[in-house]
Amino acid sequence: MNRYGLFGKLQAHPGQGDALAGLLLGSGGSAMPGCELYVINRSPEDPDAIWVYEVWTSREAHAASLELEPVRDTIQLAMPLIAGFSDRVELLPVGGQGLPREA
Amino acid sequence: MNRYGLFGKLQAHPGQGDALAGLLLGSGGSAMPGCELYVINRSPEDPDAIWVYEVWTSREAHAASLELEPVRDTIQLAMPLIAGFSDRVELLPVGGQGLPREA
Repeated sequence: MNRYGLFGKLQAHPGQGDALAGLLLGSGGSAMPGCELYVINRSPEDPDAIWVYEVWTSREAHAASLELEPVRDTIQLAMPLIAGFSDRVELLPVGGQGLPREA
Repeated sequence: MNRYGLFGKLQAHPGQGDALAGLLLGSGGSAMPGCELYVINRSPEDPDAIWVYEVWTSREAHAASLELEPVRDTIQLAMPLIAGFSDRVELLPVGGQGLPREA
């Protein structure tokens, strides 16, 4: 089991936080093979900051998802709303509550 | 629905990453009321860095968990292994894949 995880911040342009969150919430998810968790988080401090936490069955599954048509469409729609990316952390999720026991 | 989330880093003392991860993996989880996700993540860069991502049904549910006997026991066992806490982010998880639809 070589799970791969990512956590990071998408900073929307001023006033675009709702639009960006809505876009991400409406996008794929269950349609992405190897995706175990994909959680969209708002910030209590900044309505234009969106934090995303993702868990994939492998690093390769995450990389492959970026080639999927719906994911590419979402990225294309999201880019004009995004001022910047930051605080990106690569992770090796090992367990806990809410993860499938084995993939 | 006022979910509450936390992401942050626990830096173990040198060589204590495995022990700290094992302790956190063995602790509660399903026994914690209001806990929707509690994921332990290692780092590909630092064997002594542990990142925890948590989702609770409310800020109050998280606060209440810190008073539970098993949680207090885990904290007491973990503290001597921990050199420091950092990169803490408070979150408002709003949806995505892997979260219960409603709590």
